[in-house]
Amino acid sequence: MRDVAIIGIGMNKWGELWNDSLRDMYVDAAVDAIKDSGVDHIDGMYVGSMTPGLFVGQEHLGSLLADYLGIRNLPCTRVESACASGGLAIKSAYLEIASGHSDIVIAGGVEKMTDCSGDQATYALATAADQEYEVFHGATFPGLYAMMARRHMHDYGTTREQLAHVAVKNHKNGAKNPKAQYPFEVTMEGVMTSVMVADPLRILDCSPITDGAACAVLADMETAKKFCKKPLVKITGFGHATDRIAMHTRDSITRLDATAVAGERAFKMAGRKPEDIQLAEVHDCFTIAEIMVIEDLGFFEKGKGGTAAESGETHIGGRIPINTSGGLKSKGHPVGATGVAQAYEMVTQLRGDAGDRQVQGAKVGLTHNMGGSGGSTVVHIMEVV
Amino acid sequence: MRDVAIIGIGMNKWGELWNDSLRDMYVDAAVDAIKDSGVDHIDGMYVGSMTPGLFVGQEHLGSLLADYLGIRNLPCTRVESACASGGLAIKSAYLEIASGHSDIVIAGGVEKMTDCSGDQATYALATAADQEYEVFHGATFPGLYAMMARRHMHDYGTTREQLAHVAVKNHKNGAKNPKAQYPFEVTMEGVMTSVMVADPLRILDCSPITDGAACAVLADMETAKKFCKKPLVKITGFGHATDRIAMHTRDSITRLDATAVAGERAFKMAGRKPEDIQLAEVHDCFTIAEIMVIEDLGFFEKGKGGTAAESGETHIGGRIPINTSGGLKSKGHPVGATGVAQAYEMVTQLRGDAGDRQVQGAKVGLTHNMGGSGGSTVVHIMEVV
Repeated sequence: MRDVAIIGIGMNKWGELWNDSLRDMYVDAAVDAIKDSGVDHIDGMYVGSMTPGLFVGQEHLGSLLADYLGIRNLPCTRVESACASGGLAIKSAYLEIASGHSDIVIAGGVEKMTDCSGDQATYALATAADQEYEVFHGATFPGLYAMMARRHMHDYGTTREQLAHVAVKNHKNGAKNPKAQYPFEVTMEGVMTSVMVADPLRILDCSPITDGAACAVLADMETAKKFCKKPLVKITGFGHATDRIAMHTRDSITRLDATAVAGERAFKMAGRKPEDIQLAEVHDCFTIAEIMVIEDLGFFEKGKGGTAAESGETHIGGRIPINTSGGLKSKGHPVGATGVAQAYEMVTQLRGDAGDRQVQGAKVGLTHNMGGSGGSTVVHIMEVV
Repeated sequence: MRDVAIIGIGMNKWGELWNDSLRDMYVDAAVDAIKDSGVDHIDGMYVGSMTPGLFVGQEHLGSLLADYLGIRNLPCTRVESACASGGLAIKSAYLEIASGHSDIVIAGGVEKMTDCSGDQATYALATAADQEYEVFHGATFPGLYAMMARRHMHDYGTTREQLAHVAVKNHKNGAKNPKAQYPFEVTMEGVMTSVMVADPLRILDCSPITDGAACAVLADMETAKKFCKKPLVKITGFGHATDRIAMHTRDSITRLDATAVAGERAFKMAGRKPEDIQLAEVHDCFTIAEIMVIEDLGFFEKGKGGTAAESGETHIGGRIPINTSGGLKSKGHPVGATGVAQAYEMVTQLRGDAGDRQVQGAKVGLTHNMGGSGGSTVVHIMEVV
């Protein structure tokens, strides 16, 4: 396989964007990524989007977005794995370039979530769970993750306060991110007294409903060196795995098996270990998710993830900064775009362009993008070369 | 890139299958394909499905179907390009194998369309068109293709009878296909007097609403030779292209630009010309579509596609048999599965296993899978080796 680098990135300012349609947001992000990369043509495109059919009544994004981007006859594939769709777009673009079929491919993600009601959005998101065994019986994602949180507290002594520390840390980072939907800090008291959603998860434990897009331009190393005048960020490994989709069929609901396996696959491919990773963007759709993910990726011993934000180890300046972008919590979570926006943050950090939230000396990072209650996961390891 | 062959195929009997869920149908087809291939493991899977979210309230098929197939942690990606989703699953599996990342990959397709009402199905299918410029204003697919038909009749003298000849031919073929949804013949008079849907298209000009799945197992040539005891069918070329999604923005509504470009790309990659192709499965979602597609792929001069079925040139035994399976018209059109089912028919023909509908001496075939009103197209050329 040929080596592949990310040579251009773009994303819009995320939020509740009533003046921007799905196609507007995507084209803005893609044009920014193309300009950033310096390339003079594009060979292919992958778009991650979870359920534009349910959110805005539009499928066939491959045709729509190639058309509105103005690139005639561009081969474009939409990929979907619920909230891990963006990560899959990057993996797919990687494989197309690695194969030698294409030299320059856009991996993008987009979701337009605020054009429908809250009820409709909750239903749309629930289609990532097992419809016949979970959704029909009333399960929604806050409820599913609340069960994981309760069990994690029971098994490992994780506290309600530790969940809040994750939200406080991520908002502290997001306050320094001009692209974030909620770029402000929150306090421990604010989180602990916010509206209850699904006990023990409160509204400030949950990622928001967001409109947003993000794009990355990938290329083989030879092409990358030809066009890109910025530090090259090579994808040195990826891992992709699925798990049983319905939570009640898993051996444990406090271990994210797809995360563990995708992590192992990525580390093996990159020749790296968890202790080599200097910073990571992980899928904190709920505060409990960040805690479980950093355990199952091997950054913290199982059951010890709860202490990480509390102790400062996952803060900027700590042992392994997690979610310097603000994470899904503060930056927002337009589900199909999230995986690509994680790459946006990682490239920004590895280039040394992250300003107030820069991790000093960042050379090796990891992105972790998860679908549903953990039914699918895509992990990438990125290194500046 | 490594060469890639199709070494196993499976599909269920298509129809209005009230006793089979989406997951049931898919697993049946996948298990049949795995058995047919003789492989002892699977490295990855791609599932083409257009809009399971709108049809049955279920996204995240990658996790769901890997889970129900019983292969732990299998990397699985859903791909979507409206009705061309199945073709994209095959292209995606091809690239993953060609890159060297995987040796054995399943490309599958599935759609469960009859669990919702006719109105809901029409809305779900319309999400393949441009929602803001076509669907909001009342356009549906029979209406869009009816406009193409009227213009084709005006420009080229194509007749109402010629449209009917396509339906009669495809039902004649489908009557010999035990997997077809409507395995019976229809008469010219039957088509010409069937219920009007969108003038000039009548109900027997339209492909039906169908539940169905199809799977193919792909492998690199070395692995293929190790496991497969049947004639190997190599994919010698593919082409993938998009067009402007909204019909009113195209230079011509009687030329399917994505079809023409995808065809050219596939012919170039395979080192073949239209006249080398002995048989083809093409996307006859409406009778007019088959006529335009066989022109734009270069099998017939532009404007002469209408005479092809009438003259017998596209019948079994004719110059280039088209849709020996019965096509979308008689076999059925579970939208995400159609592209993979075209490969199922082509492999069956190239292996010499097509029974009463066998094209004698078939060695080189083409499959053509189209999304929306032609906004995306995937073409594969397959040859027995």
